[in-house]
Amino acid sequence: MYDVSEIRRDFPILSREVNGKPLVYLDNGASAQKPQVVIDAVTRGYAEEYANVHRGLHFLSNLATEKYEAVRGTVARFLGARDEEEVVFTSGTTEGINLVAYSWAMPRLEPGDEIILSVMEHHANVVPWHFLRERQGVVIKWVDVDATGALDPQQVIDAIGPKTKLIAITHLSNVLGTVVDVKTICAAARQRGVAVLIDGSQSAVHMPVNVEEIGCDFYAITGHKLYGPSGSGAIWIRKERMDEMRPFMGGGDMIREVHKDSVTYADPPMKFEAGTPGIVQQIGLGVALDYLMDLGMENIAAHEASVAAYAKARMEGLNWLQVQGHAPGKAAIFSFTLEGAAHAHDISTILDKKGVAVRAGHHCAGPLMDHLGVSATCRASFGLYNTEQEVDALIDALELAHELFA
Amino acid sequence: MYDVSEIRRDFPILSREVNGKPLVYLDNGASAQKPQVVIDAVTRGYAEEYANVHRGLHFLSNLATEKYEAVRGTVARFLGARDEEEVVFTSGTTEGINLVAYSWAMPRLEPGDEIILSVMEHHANVVPWHFLRERQGVVIKWVDVDATGALDPQQVIDAIGPKTKLIAITHLSNVLGTVVDVKTICAAARQRGVAVLIDGSQSAVHMPVNVEEIGCDFYAITGHKLYGPSGSGAIWIRKERMDEMRPFMGGGDMIREVHKDSVTYADPPMKFEAGTPGIVQQIGLGVALDYLMDLGMENIAAHEASVAAYAKARMEGLNWLQVQGHAPGKAAIFSFTLEGAAHAHDISTILDKKGVAVRAGHHCAGPLMDHLGVSATCRASFGLYNTEQEVDALIDALELAHELFA
Repeated sequence: MYDVSEIRRDFPILSREVNGKPLVYLDNGASAQKPQVVIDAVTRGYAEEYANVHRGLHFLSNLATEKYEAVRGTVARFLGARDEEEVVFTSGTTEGINLVAYSWAMPRLEPGDEIILSVMEHHANVVPWHFLRERQGVVIKWVDVDATGALDPQQVIDAIGPKTKLIAITHLSNVLGTVVDVKTICAAARQRGVAVLIDGSQSAVHMPVNVEEIGCDFYAITGHKLYGPSGSGAIWIRKERMDEMRPFMGGGDMIREVHKDSVTYADPPMKFEAGTPGIVQQIGLGVALDYLMDLGMENIAAHEASVAAYAKARMEGLNWLQVQGHAPGKAAIFSFTLEGAAHAHDISTILDKKGVAVRAGHHCAGPLMDHLGVSATCRASFGLYNTEQEVDALIDALELAHELFA
Repeated sequence: MYDVSEIRRDFPILSREVNGKPLVYLDNGASAQKPQVVIDAVTRGYAEEYANVHRGLHFLSNLATEKYEAVRGTVARFLGARDEEEVVFTSGTTEGINLVAYSWAMPRLEPGDEIILSVMEHHANVVPWHFLRERQGVVIKWVDVDATGALDPQQVIDAIGPKTKLIAITHLSNVLGTVVDVKTICAAARQRGVAVLIDGSQSAVHMPVNVEEIGCDFYAITGHKLYGPSGSGAIWIRKERMDEMRPFMGGGDMIREVHKDSVTYADPPMKFEAGTPGIVQQIGLGVALDYLMDLGMENIAAHEASVAAYAKARMEGLNWLQVQGHAPGKAAIFSFTLEGAAHAHDISTILDKKGVAVRAGHHCAGPLMDHLGVSATCRASFGLYNTEQEVDALIDALELAHELFA
């Protein structure tokens, strides 16, 4: 039984006020709030159990190493991975995707080789590929969405040509809420020997993910959106792809031996993890993922679907509100503009006065903004703790904004 | 007045026991413990003031952004930089040095171009340059230390040739405690148009640093050694060098505009900061640096020098203890082996039974281990909270180890 008011009590920040109003936090797409268990794990990590990890032989170092390394297994369970050795720790999705760009793609892709992206990609899954375009002549092929914001997987498959080496695609659009049928894409890509990287920043937050069922090669997640600490994250990399990758950053931990004239590298996943890692934040990420698995990702998805249906119905009653994205099965992410009137930034400022936190801007999705023909939208993105009452607060605040700008 | 017992009360972990003995934490070279103000800042950051930074327009996002961006000024003050726009946030020194390797050196250095390193460098300041050697034919020139572990700056200067593009050098050896006269090196390098990167991981912890006085081009620090959160850090980059650098990781925040066929980048320092950063850990880093500046880096240095002198005197009484590194003015870092007998790992295990935490191994300094002709040492590295009584505890534990292994 999913008791949202009980769950809300796990998140201390949700009881605070903003501008004299109860906080209505609908900026989860940017970053999620943290449950007390995560905060406590971080506090305990520093106050009682802190030391650097690996190679230490003293008590605290062993303790920290044990807790830190256990998170690899937690991430593997969370993503349905067979082997925790396929989990590389990162500071977030951005580092994860850049790791693939620098370590896998950069040394392999020749001028004219192609990478397929959807028009919905976040800049984190666009700019690393623009680097390869600028620096070594790789060609980016774009696949558009239809008028509802849905992405036909067949269009992605049809874009595959003899020069295609990689499909890099989001599992869930951070602007439209569109869920992409990545499984169908992966099956076709695999047949043609094309690797698939999935940006799981948003999807892993809202629904169960199983990388083996999906059949992808790379699946990147970010801890701060998963109710975990900032600066935490991981990327799952299929063993065969790991073997094709050279190291990314150089430093401690990722080496076997370093001499004046030679260097040898550790086996994966350590090969891709240089320097003192984000010890305490990764420990916190493990606690966050356990928290999510305890609630059950299916239950979270069901709760959010119900809140989303309510939000959709209420928004449909506002004929001056232009909502972007109506793909079937879309997640609880609503981007919108106010007809005629105000700029997205002004709307979000009004909402903020009512304690309602939304994001306004391009949402790091420039190509999609071009496709939609807008420069910015407001975005209300829901999380596991949001309620129908909060939808009502959003609608009330939107009505106020409409009155003010009408 | 530097009251070390009062200061110790700021660090909650120092009152804990390990293996039934009071913790004697002498592994500060690997990572330092955190004062309560830092832990509180992290807790508050998550429990009361959390949101993603930049581009948000709601209250919490503005609050988090303000606190996060203020740290840039704190780092600039801490390092004596003129302009906080020369501070790039990183997850630590490793990322900082890799940023320079990928963004500055990689697109500029031709086959045969030279990078000068000292034999004391940490792997974080070796492996990124080995990458350039392996991948694009850059030549690494090594400068040795003398028998005391001192580095003659003139030897570094003499190594500069017409093909030398970069000197990458530690300010303070993490194994020997040797302080390098980087100012003399920088003056000569500047005259010859050679850039200097300084690994400040250890130095910034133990003594006042002023990048303008030093005259370097890059100065990297890491938060977790500076009594700040894991995963925090920064690199100071002289404006002219920033202008020579291309972006490193691609993603949100570091762009100006992203379209299907083009991308333009933000101005530095944002150009080098991709994706959601380590928001809360950087806020914690700012608090840690304020804590250090409140104590006064001169005062910390004086306290540590006094503890180091005591430790040196006591160690000299143990004729079976081989201490590595006797450079004049060396910092409170003591690497040692036990004559004849045990492996470093065994010694550290005995010490741990007595609650004394030291590190054993190659200390991420392979070339130096080769130079010293050892495979591993034990290292006791002192911090601002260590005391003469803790030196005594170390010596007692060493005597026990000597008895056991004799």
